[in-house]
Amino acid sequence: MTPGTLFLVPAPLDFGCDTQAPLSDVLPDHTLRTAARLTDWICENAKSTRAYLKRVDAVHALARPLQELSLAELPHGVHKKGDHAAGGFDASPLLAPALAGRDIGLVSEAGMPAIADPGSSVVRAAHELGVPVVPLVGPVSLLLALAASGLNGQNFAFVGYLPVDGVARAQRIRELEALALRTGQTQLFIETPYRNLALWEALMKTLQHNTRVATGTGLTLAGGRCASRDVKAWKPLPCPLDNSTPAVFALGR
Amino acid sequence: MTPGTLFLVPAPLDFGCDTQAPLSDVLPDHTLRTAARLTDWICENAKSTRAYLKRVDAVHALARPLQELSLAELPHGVHKKGDHAAGGFDASPLLAPALAGRDIGLVSEAGMPAIADPGSSVVRAAHELGVPVVPLVGPVSLLLALAASGLNGQNFAFVGYLPVDGVARAQRIRELEALALRTGQTQLFIETPYRNLALWEALMKTLQHNTRVATGTGLTLAGGRCASRDVKAWKPLPCPLDNSTPAVFALGR
Repeated sequence: MTPGTLFLVPAPLDFGCDTQAPLSDVLPDHTLRTAARLTDWICENAKSTRAYLKRVDAVHALARPLQELSLAELPHGVHKKGDHAAGGFDASPLLAPALAGRDIGLVSEAGMPAIADPGSSVVRAAHELGVPVVPLVGPVSLLLALAASGLNGQNFAFVGYLPVDGVARAQRIRELEALALRTGQTQLFIETPYRNLALWEALMKTLQHNTRVATGTGLTLAGGRCASRDVKAWKPLPCPLDNSTPAVFALGR
Repeated sequence: MTPGTLFLVPAPLDFGCDTQAPLSDVLPDHTLRTAARLTDWICENAKSTRAYLKRVDAVHALARPLQELSLAELPHGVHKKGDHAAGGFDASPLLAPALAGRDIGLVSEAGMPAIADPGSSVVRAAHELGVPVVPLVGPVSLLLALAASGLNGQNFAFVGYLPVDGVARAQRIRELEALALRTGQTQLFIETPYRNLALWEALMKTLQHNTRVATGTGLTLAGGRCASRDVKAWKPLPCPLDNSTPAVFALGR
């Protein structure tokens, strides 16, 4: 039996936001058509996947009614820390539909699955099992923010979340700044929205005056904004973020 | 005068390839509509931008005939090494149309401008001049390859090109492997297509048996392929790349 293909299906970036982007603003038609025809899904969260597929259905009719689709959730242990930090898990059973010959979708709550989001164990299992993997085009907040930062896009790193504890966080910020200044490698990171302001204050307090800091928030949304300045130019200004909209942070020189 | 907006306009990934992806496979309609209405462009290469805009015109009619558009090329010094390695340049004059109130597009030959491609000096100048920067959604080969690699997507770095000299290249490969194994940070890099096979051989000869290597090639195209295995599983197999199609390389654990 020829296995089905595992499609990596990006989702819009408006999860948990007050406003929504029309799907055709952020997803190519091919991505939407593929999402509409898949009947088997592996997802971060079944509820938000249903909400997403309902929006897809309004553009291209789903191949089967929403309630007849198979939505398998990833184990909760890998959600926040990611598959690798959690030690991975055996995702082979989730790929049974693909081994039975059906195409299958992997989707997260926002953006690209397996990037700053769980799912890499599923991709790895697909490669092991000989299931072809096809990533589809869609929004990736990290890369939108990086492109709009004016920081070095030829050498960059995404390091996930910074520590919550104030002392450890300041130490990590100094470590990332030293790395960026020494190597020219832009450092990207994210934070849970309700901690945006706390992280911003820590950045302003900890970083050197000439270090450049950029943020992208509400990317692809109507009120979205990208801003980039060095710390001494940022300091007199109000924080460019609120505590409810997802943001990406970048620092470099 | 309210300045225009600088739109970062992604291009398809088929530049220089034998096959082309239909634009609607890889670009959301909003990106295509925006590209169609812009009359002022800053680009890596005017000829390839004209070819791209001709394809856009077939989907949404351009606001003005192609020959009436203003296409300003980036200085050639920043092309390969990137704006930062080249020491940057003063891009303010290129933004004159935006200061005169017109929206303006920044575009590279493939993928997202300013990511693994020149353009960051333009973005930086826009921020300095108070020109709003809006990144549009489109394909980014690095991120498609990373998502499809099964490698860690919560901590990753893109380091550009490896050295061409064999000894320096092997040393850099060992350095990236040590970093990936020690920190769990996936290391991504690219190569000029005609050196794909040479780089592949160097990876196979230099890396440890249990290090995982992934490649994505011809991404978003009909013959595109993503593959991911540890070195000992790769070794008996033929190289998954040819010397003519752009590829992204990733290594990690």
